[in-house]
Amino acid sequence: MPYVNIKVTDEQVTKEQKAALIKGATQLLVDVLNKNPATTFVVIDEVNTDNWGVGGEVVTELRKKQA
Amino acid sequence: MPYVNIKVTDEQVTKEQKAALIKGATQLLVDVLNKNPATTFVVIDEVNTDNWGVGGEVVTELRKKQA
Amino acid sequence: MPYVNIKVTDEQVTKEQKAALIKGATQLLVDVLNKNPATTFVVIDEVNTDNWGVGGEVVTELRKKQA
Amino acid sequence: MPYVNIKVTDEQVTKEQKAALIKGATQLLVDVLNKNPATTFVVIDEVNTDNWGVGGEVVTELRKKQA
Amino acid sequence: MPYVNIKVTDEQVTKEQKAALIKGATQLLVDVLNKNPATTFVVIDEVNTDNWGVGGEVVTELRKKQA
Amino acid sequence: MPYVNIKVTDEQVTKEQKAALIKGATQLLVDVLNKNPATTFVVIDEVNTDNWGVGGEVVTELRKKQA
Repeated sequence: MPYVNIKVTDEQVTKEQKAALIKGATQLLVDVLNKNPATTFVVIDEVNTDNWGVGGEVVTELRKKQA
Repeated sequence: MPYVNIKVTDEQVTKEQKAALIKGATQLLVDVLNKNPATTFVVIDEVNTDNWGVGGEVVTELRKKQA
Repeated sequence: MPYVNIKVTDEQVTKEQKAALIKGATQLLVDVLNKNPATTFVVIDEVNTDNWGVGGEVVTELRKKQA
Repeated sequence: MPYVNIKVTDEQVTKEQKAALIKGATQLLVDVLNKNPATTFVVIDEVNTDNWGVGGEVVTELRKKQA
Repeated sequence: MPYVNIKVTDEQVTKEQKAALIKGATQLLVDVLNKNPATTFVVIDEVNTDNWGVGGEVVTELRKKQA
Repeated sequence: MPYVNIKVTDEQVTKEQKAALIKGATQLLVDVLNKNPATTFVVIDEVNTDNWGVGGEVVTELRKKQA
């Protein structure tokens, strides 16, 4: 009965990508730990780039520098 | 000083239902562990059905099959 | 398919109390939101009092003052 | 490689305040534990006041009483 | 810069299995969202079976019934 | 009523360092958002280096390479 929480920045993640994350994370638990997929939960949190920081800097600003 | 986090799918949970979850979860900690309600926090996260998976499938799709 | 996480300090919570928290939290989701208990998860985290702070103070120290 | 999650109510937190929280939390880990800021993550969750409870009451209602 | 949290019951998960979960979850984010693995974190929480409930029952008890 | 969760690897964090993290995180919320410290919680999770991965590698292995 694993629970997987995936946090990513909310940069246009599509429904298909979310479905792929859910399918892939569930399969990972089946493959590695032989868990029952029926009781495996995956929850994806999309976080605004204003609300995520790395190295003390807001990701929104980091993205501007990378552009 | 307990902290309770309740994650549910965002399927039209009303203000009254949220208030009932908060009241009920707080009372549970009082009843079972004799905790002080004044320092008991409850946080409810409503998760889009596109972002929640069970059994490797997206809940949005599961709901269509159930309908 | 709710997920409930309960964080409490690790002050001798018994197996019976944990079972009561799990049962009560699951029932709360059934009562308020008509959720299916079979796909309701409850996870209890017991946190050392050295690792929990309120009002800027470590709970271990707060407990000494209360004693 | 610390991970810091800050949950606050969504009461008009500005971009500047978010940047200050990210900078301050990262610096705290550097100062106290000598962590590398480059691999320190900070994620801020803004929670609707309807979804946060203290003392068994919804924060939205507590705010009305305080007003 | 994704963050992945995997919660499983603490039933003799080996170091090799943990390494496989970390490698697999990181690769999933690379494959699906083209994320940079260098800034992808994976944290595994092993939860005592006394502290995990499904369907209102403690997993410790569920395991006895399955045995 | 903020809630702050700090996850770090369990590499001999002292009581004094934990107290400093709790004090500093609480003060940060007071300084930036004018929050009431009395209802600010800080919870520190110490994660085994076998259970934390960065860049697809287990931190235990990364530490050996750094040594």
